[in-house]
Amino acid sequence: MKQLTVIKVGGKIVEDEDTLAQLLKDFSAIDGAKVLVHGGGRSATKVAADLGIESVMIGGRRVTDANMLRVVSMVYGGLVNKNIVARLQACGVNALGLTGADMNVMLSHKRPLKKVKMEDGTEQMVDFGYVGDVDKCDGKMLATLICEGVVPVMAPLTHDGKGNLLNTNADTIAGETAKALAPYFDVTLIYSFEHAGVLTNPDDENSVIPLITADSFESLKADGTVSGGMIPKIENALEALRSGVKQVIITKADAIDGKHGTVIK
Amino acid sequence: MKQLTVIKVGGKIVEDEDTLAQLLKDFSAIDGAKVLVHGGGRSATKVAADLGIESVMIGGRRVTDANMLRVVSMVYGGLVNKNIVARLQACGVNALGLTGADMNVMLSHKRPLKKVKMEDGTEQMVDFGYVGDVDKCDGKMLATLICEGVVPVMAPLTHDGKGNLLNTNADTIAGETAKALAPYFDVTLIYSFEHAGVLTNPDDENSVIPLITADSFESLKADGTVSGGMIPKIENALEALRSGVKQVIITKADAIDGKHGTVIK
Repeated sequence: MKQLTVIKVGGKIVEDEDTLAQLLKDFSAIDGAKVLVHGGGRSATKVAADLGIESVMIGGRRVTDANMLRVVSMVYGGLVNKNIVARLQACGVNALGLTGADMNVMLSHKRPLKKVKMEDGTEQMVDFGYVGDVDKCDGKMLATLICEGVVPVMAPLTHDGKGNLLNTNADTIAGETAKALAPYFDVTLIYSFEHAGVLTNPDDENSVIPLITADSFESLKADGTVSGGMIPKIENALEALRSGVKQVIITKADAIDGKHGTVIK
Repeated sequence: MKQLTVIKVGGKIVEDEDTLAQLLKDFSAIDGAKVLVHGGGRSATKVAADLGIESVMIGGRRVTDANMLRVVSMVYGGLVNKNIVARLQACGVNALGLTGADMNVMLSHKRPLKKVKMEDGTEQMVDFGYVGDVDKCDGKMLATLICEGVVPVMAPLTHDGKGNLLNTNADTIAGETAKALAPYFDVTLIYSFEHAGVLTNPDDENSVIPLITADSFESLKADGTVSGGMIPKIENALEALRSGVKQVIITKADAIDGKHGTVIK
């Protein structure tokens, strides 16, 4: 099968002109079929603040009330997404910006009240507001577009099929996209973040673990090498593998060529 | 050839919940292939004001500096466009939101300094900033999408192919789209606005001129029946006809079924 790379980049990368320019150059250089999934949380927080709207985060996740939904619709769907699309077009990449609502590509439902562990150790039921948990991604339609040379650029917004946009975690969008495309391509899913990969020593960027498997993950967890926020990241990666994705790579945003970072397979 | 309807709706219609709901219902009910082109100027002005950015209009057109370009990218490309798309999906319309940058559908160039007649009668050279004058619309690509059942929803933004989005008049987007699709469909272009059509008496909504042709337009201009802002609107319509569009209809936003208003053909 043809190779396809799904790359998720965080808000920090796409919001700074220097890192964005480098990312777009690197992304343009990737051979073959590809999809870009972006965040934009920092810009959303800034625009919200400029509009006098406070950003409320619980357990690292944004609470999205009606006003914040307007902000993320503007920032993710418009400002960040369309600028990336225009910039990629200038690099000769036939980009198409998509939210989940466009051609019904990603359907979700509004997250029900969710039990969240708070910083003080207590648990609370939290209403995250207009946040979507993904039900379905139309891989067939995406694959058709991709085979015609289109490069989807996906914003972290989905819809509920009842007329509402829903704010959706960009890691989730990337994972669901990769899984939905797995029947059509040999999919590599690249999560870029602030470190060079999964590190054995968080203070040493040279301590990247080159390969993690389902088995080695259990030992890494057991001996405490992998902990905290890395655990759900790797669990999501393993889940993507079980759904047909060929490999997941966790790497730094300036090393998205698939040759760096931690490979999970 | 198959029929296709391109409908342009102004910002006022899409920004008020009641009129938007009616528009989406009416648009969903239109048989056959269709394209929706929307404005959003009032929302842009409001969001800009909320961000402390002043809207500068010269000769009825927005001056788009770098800050205002960010605002219109957010409002047109995100807030307005993606909400319409999500709402249309809920009506069973397979909408796809597009700016000109997406799949390179509409290429433009930054408007050079332009001579504008000011309110005091003097003429001035005006720099409208990041405003695009359209060079090319990819009708073939749009026609392919439309034949697959997709309904393009076009925001008034284009790009220059060098990485910049450009603010572009929604009437122009609608006209260029209609012309680019004319080789593939029998195109009806509907401009909706605040009146029931071109009126012989501006105070009487029942005085709609049912039909205007290139010939009758000359007499209507000569005897003063048609004047002011209606003249460029009708001139644009006649230009669209010369480029292969079958008919242009100027009508009220709540009467977009093609059976009301002034037909120009």
